[in-house]
Amino acid sequence: MELWFTENHTDNVRFSIKIKRQIVNEKTPYQQIDIFDTEEFGKVFVLDGYIMLTEKDEFIYHEMITHPAFAVHPCIKNILVIGAGDGGTIRELTKYDSVEHIDMVEIDERVVAVSKEFLPFTACRLDDPRVHIFYQDGMEYVRARGNEYDLIIVDSTDPLGPGTSLFTREFYSDCFKALHEDGILINQHESPFYKNDAEAAKSIHGKIAGVFPIALVYQFHMPTYPSGHWLFGFTSKKYHPVGDIRCADWDTLGIKTKYYNTALHAGSFALPNYVLEILQY
Amino acid sequence: MELWFTENHTDNVRFSIKIKRQIVNEKTPYQQIDIFDTEEFGKVFVLDGYIMLTEKDEFIYHEMITHPAFAVHPCIKNILVIGAGDGGTIRELTKYDSVEHIDMVEIDERVVAVSKEFLPFTACRLDDPRVHIFYQDGMEYVRARGNEYDLIIVDSTDPLGPGTSLFTREFYSDCFKALHEDGILINQHESPFYKNDAEAAKSIHGKIAGVFPIALVYQFHMPTYPSGHWLFGFTSKKYHPVGDIRCADWDTLGIKTKYYNTALHAGSFALPNYVLEILQY
Repeated sequence: MELWFTENHTDNVRFSIKIKRQIVNEKTPYQQIDIFDTEEFGKVFVLDGYIMLTEKDEFIYHEMITHPAFAVHPCIKNILVIGAGDGGTIRELTKYDSVEHIDMVEIDERVVAVSKEFLPFTACRLDDPRVHIFYQDGMEYVRARGNEYDLIIVDSTDPLGPGTSLFTREFYSDCFKALHEDGILINQHESPFYKNDAEAAKSIHGKIAGVFPIALVYQFHMPTYPSGHWLFGFTSKKYHPVGDIRCADWDTLGIKTKYYNTALHAGSFALPNYVLEILQY
Repeated sequence: MELWFTENHTDNVRFSIKIKRQIVNEKTPYQQIDIFDTEEFGKVFVLDGYIMLTEKDEFIYHEMITHPAFAVHPCIKNILVIGAGDGGTIRELTKYDSVEHIDMVEIDERVVAVSKEFLPFTACRLDDPRVHIFYQDGMEYVRARGNEYDLIIVDSTDPLGPGTSLFTREFYSDCFKALHEDGILINQHESPFYKNDAEAAKSIHGKIAGVFPIALVYQFHMPTYPSGHWLFGFTSKKYHPVGDIRCADWDTLGIKTKYYNTALHAGSFALPNYVLEILQY
């Protein structure tokens, strides 16, 4: 017998992974959660039919969503993370001794629970004493904050289902207000390749660039996401992601990474012409 | 009715494209050629079951295999291209007025013939008077050359089937001999992500670095290749691909590109840690 999981990247493109067994199959009030065990990718975590992470390549996503801000901002102490219930982003953030406080806002308590049980490679630091988890809507949480954070990370799903409100101009304005005057916002920015993803990337950039003085986009290779070409946004009130990079300081910290390094950091902001055109830089 | 083409990226990973119709299905003395028409990618050109190019993203591969050498070497006149029967590499090379002579060595005459008939978007410049096509084995052709070329491009298939000899140390030594004293070799370098591809990338780099004084690798996003994370080698007798880049000179040429630009050129040589480890830089 063969068991295959298939994700539709578009109506005309399918990506399929051979499954050893299904570990979780649960409908929560917010979404459908599935976890599979696979030969190629180890554990595969799926929300509403879309791969969120695999054990084999999650390090790329989680390193790239966290470390660039730390190589630019000289002292990140207070952090807000929205989404990220699998814990991978938290695992990377807790590598920094300078970090004093992390508020994590995840709408779906079950994501954290199943991650703790079945995805220990990402969930391993969710019990760090600096981490404070709030199970509520990210947009509502941010609305009530002001001048509190050095860094906000929006580790959202796609602009569908429970994550939709995290792609509005109103939300980005609330993030601006919640950040200190030298604060940085990093957000999941979709992909430039397939039409729907590219339209989302364009829309996100237009909204953020209307709110923040510095709004740039960086790219990375994410093999299990559609097209493998994925983007994050580096949005900031003060620091430029390349001009203000402090390579030697970051290197001195001795943070162990498998994808990120400071040369790659600078390189990842050099985008292809067709991506620049989509974003209308 | 639905018709789907599936490529096995590994034994456990499949990539499938919805097909409108099959245009070519031909067994040559060297390989199986298929061409499909698709909604998502336009024409899709397949050799021995592996996607060689699609109309939607071939520009990425063909721009990245050609333009970096021209932004570094001040005067490329004589070029040898091995493989590349679809014509996409030739299309990009013929954008340069400085180019005087291009020898193209393609083992399979039928690849050129079907490309001219069905892939005009890549084959459009194969009749340029500067292009001289030889239908023979690339390795044998190079063996007989000495001090003739400014640039050699090895636009090969994977290290399987008719392309195998293009991945030997002997072949790279013959390329060294065939190049001028400031010559550059650009080669298809596989991918770092899936095990077999990564082993090939490691093997290629080890062999080339044993022959040329400068042997570096650069990366790009190739959505229809396995993992979307693909590599080319920039190997050189004299010029460093980043240290010797002449951005202003290249920009002055006014070459139109959809992926390549000189900022991205420099950035593409900044590799992730896990790739550096595979290549043992």
